Amino acid sequence: MASSPHVSASDPTGSLVERLSIPPYRGGVLDGLRFTVKDNIDLAGRKTSYGSPAWRDAHAAPQQNALCVDQLLAAGGTCIGKVVADEFTYSLDGESQFFGTPVNARAPERVPGGSSSGSAASVAGGLADFSLGTDSGGSIRVPASLCGLWGMRPSLHRISEAGVLPFMPGVSTVGAAADRFAVLDKAMRVLLRSAPEGDATADGEPAVERLLILEDAFELCDGAVARAAEEALGTICDRAGIVPERVRFADLVGRDMGLADCNAKALRNLQTAEFQNTGGNWIETQKPELGFVFSMAYGNVRAFDRIAALDSLALCERLFEAINAALPQGTVICFPTTPVIAPLKGSLTSLEAVLAFYDPTMAITSFSGVGRLPEITAPLLTVDDAPVGLSFAARHYGDEALLAATRALLQPE
Amino acid sequence: MASSPHVSASDPTGSLVERLSIPPYRGGVLDGLRFTVKDNIDLAGRKTSYGSPAWRDAHAAPQQNALCVDQLLAAGGTCIGKVVADEFTYSLDGESQFFGTPVNARAPERVPGGSSSGSAASVAGGLADFSLGTDSGGSIRVPASLCGLWGMRPSLHRISEAGVLPFMPGVSTVGAAADRFAVLDKAMRVLLRSAPEGDATADGEPAVERLLILEDAFELCDGAVARAAEEALGTICDRAGIVPERVRFADLVGRDMGLADCNAKALRNLQTAEFQNTGGNWIETQKPELGFVFSMAYGNVRAFDRIAALDSLALCERLFEAINAALPQGTVICFPTTPVIAPLKGSLTSLEAVLAFYDPTMAITSFSGVGRLPEITAPLLTVDDAPVGLSFAARHYGDEALLAATRALLQPE
Repeated sequence: MASSPHVSASDPTGSLVERLSIPPYRGGVLDGLRFTVKDNIDLAGRKTSYGSPAWRDAHAAPQQNALCVDQLLAAGGTCIGKVVADEFTYSLDGESQFFGTPVNARAPERVPGGSSSGSAASVAGGLADFSLGTDSGGSIRVPASLCGLWGMRPSLHRISEAGVLPFMPGVSTVGAAADRFAVLDKAMRVLLRSAPEGDATADGEPAVERLLILEDAFELCDGAVARAAEEALGTICDRAGIVPERVRFADLVGRDMGLADCNAKALRNLQTAEFQNTGGNWIETQKPELGFVFSMAYGNVRAFDRIAALDSLALCERLFEAINAALPQGTVICFPTTPVIAPLKGSLTSLEAVLAFYDPTMAITSFSGVGRLPEITAPLLTVDDAPVGLSFAARHYGDEALLAATRALLQPE
Repeated sequence: MASSPHVSASDPTGSLVERLSIPPYRGGVLDGLRFTVKDNIDLAGRKTSYGSPAWRDAHAAPQQNALCVDQLLAAGGTCIGKVVADEFTYSLDGESQFFGTPVNARAPERVPGGSSSGSAASVAGGLADFSLGTDSGGSIRVPASLCGLWGMRPSLHRISEAGVLPFMPGVSTVGAAADRFAVLDKAMRVLLRSAPEGDATADGEPAVERLLILEDAFELCDGAVARAAEEALGTICDRAGIVPERVRFADLVGRDMGLADCNAKALRNLQTAEFQNTGGNWIETQKPELGFVFSMAYGNVRAFDRIAALDSLALCERLFEAINAALPQGTVICFPTTPVIAPLKGSLTSLEAVLAFYDPTMAITSFSGVGRLPEITAPLLTVDDAPVGLSFAARHYGDEALLAATRALLQPE
C-alpha cells in the first residue's frame, strides 16, 4: 500500500502527491497565483492515479498536460503540486486509505471532504491560491464547503475534459476552489474561455433580477446549518435590496418529488450506469486492488441493474428541462452547499454514519447535477467553529452570469 | 495486418467487423428495427477497436454495452452487427487499410465517407435500418451525405458518451444514420431521451419561423452541388411557403472570417489539442502500429503547438456564443452537408487530392462543430448519379425542435 503523502514537516497540509514548480508559459491574468492539480488531471511526464495506486501503476505517464492545466499555465499561473484525490474520485469524504487524509485547516479534527480533498486542503492550508479539481456528484462543492473555501462547479461540459477521464460523462465537470472570490473568478474565466469583462456578449444581462431559495435543501440540513444559512441570506438580501422567493423542488419541476428523489430516483442511476462503463469496466477487466471503503461503494455499482434503471435517464432529462425553464436569465437559486459541517475524522465507519452524511448531501448536490447547472459555493457560514458553504446556481451555460451575480450579491473582497 | 472484414458473399456491404444478433431487452418504439454499432462504441464481451487493430489488441473486451446501445436495446431495437470505423475515427473518407473499405451502395465506385464508414454502408446496403455512430468533425454527416442517408449529429453532449471514449471531448457526439427520416427520428428521440411528442416541453415552440441559408457553404461547393442544393431549396421553400434569408458567416459571428477560417483558425486547433491528450497520448506512450494514411495525418497532430493555439480556444467560445445568438427558437439554418459527391475509391493518394476533399468539407462541417449544434443531413441531392446531403441545423440543445422542423420543411415519408 502506498503511504505517501501524509502530513509532514514539508507538507503540513497533507495534500501533496508531488511538489512541483511548473512555471507559467507566459504572463496573464493569473500572474503570481499558485495552483495545485487534483490527481485525476494529467500533468505531462507524471503518472495520474485517479486516487488509485493500481490505476497509477497500470497506466503510462501522460505526454501532455490536460488542456485545462495548459490554459492556466498560459494565463500566468504557476503549478506547485499534484494533490490527493479520493479513490476513483468516488467519494465525498476525503479519507484516503492509500494517500492519507489531507488536513482541513479550518477544522483540523474533521475530514476535508472529497473527492477533491487535496485541492481543498492545499488551498485552505495556504499552500496554493487555487486548485484545479473535478466535480460529478459534489467533489469540488463539498470539500470547498467543508474547508471554508470558494468553489465552482461549472455548467456540464463548458470546460474541456481533454486529459481528464470523466468517469460519469453525463455529470462530470472540471472546476476550481480558491481562497478568495477574486481568484476563483479569474481562474474560472480562464477555464471557461470567457469574453473579457464588460464585453456585451458575456455581461449584457442583468446580474440578479430574482433570487430563489430552494426550501427542500434547508429542510435536509442540520438545524444549526439551516439557521446560519437563513441568517446569512437575510443579510445578503437586505444589503442587495432584493426580496427572495421561496420555492419547492416539486413546484419547480412540476412533479411530486423532492431532492432526495432527485438523487435516488434520477441522477444516481445515471451516475451509476455511467461508472459501470468507465471505472467499473476497468475494475472488472483488470481486478485491481481496491481500498476497503471504495470496495463497499463499488459493491452497489456492481450489483446495479442498468437496464431496469434506464427510465431514470429519461427522468433526468425531464428534470433538466424543467429546472432550466425555471431559471431564465437574471434568476439565481440559493441553498446550503452541504447539510452539515465536516464529519469528524474516522467517524464514517458504520453504514448508518455513512448514509447520514451521504444521503442528504447528495440530495442537495443532485440539484445542480441533474440541472447541469453552474454552482458557486461561498464560505459564508460557521457552525460549531467549522465552516459550511452557501451555494448559488444559475441556468446551464450561465456561468459568467453566475460569477457576476455572486459578486453583485455578496460583494466579496 | 488484420484483413477482415471485406466484401464477401456473406456481407456484400463490406461493413461488418462482426455479425451479431443481440435481441432487444423489451419492446418499444424501435420494435422490428435492426441497427449496427460503430466499432468505437462498446459492446459487452467484444473488443472495441476504434478502427485500430493495435488499440483492439491492447485493451480488454468491455463488460458492459455503451449506455447508448443499452438505450436502443431497451426501446425494442435489435443489434445485428459491429461495423467498421476509420482508424482512431480520425478520417472522413472511409478507406481503411486494416478493415477494408465498406461499400457505398449508392455509388459503388466511390468511397463511403468516414469515419462512420461501416455505419453508412450497412444502412445504405440494406443490412440495417439504422446505425449508431459518432461525429466530431463530420464522421456521421459526411458518410450519410455521401451514401445518400439521413444522418444526425446531436448537440454536443446531449447524449451520454459512457462506453465511448470521446477523442475530442469538446466536439465529439454520439448520433445515428438511417434509411428513412421516420427511423432516424425514432432512434434519435430514444438516444436524446426526448419527451413524448406532443409534450409541451419538447414541442411547444413553432417548428420553423425563419430559414437561414449559409451562403459561404454554397461557395465552397462544386458548382453542380451548389446548383442542386439551390434547386432543392427552392422547392422546399415554395412548398412550405417560407422566404429564406441568405446570410454570411462573417455577419452571423460579427467577425471578418469565413468558414475556412472557422475550421483552420478555431475548431481544428481545439480538436488537435484535444486529440493530443487522448488518442495521441496513447500513441506516444504505446508506440502502436499505425496505418499509412493515419500516420500522415497524425504527423500534424504530433507537430502541433498546443500552447501557441490556446487563443483558438477562446475564439471557439466566441463563435459558439455568436452562432447561437443568431439561432433563437424557431430559426433553422441550411447548407450543403458536403461540398462534393464521394471521391472515387483510391483517388485520395496525393496531398493535393486529400486537401481538395478535406479542406472545403471540414470548413462546412466546422459550423455545427464550433456552434455545438444539432445538424440533420437529408438525402435530397443527386449529382453525377451520386448522392449528396442537404443539412439543417438549429441552436445548441434544440435537437427536438430540429427534428420537428425537418419534418415540417421536408415532409419526408
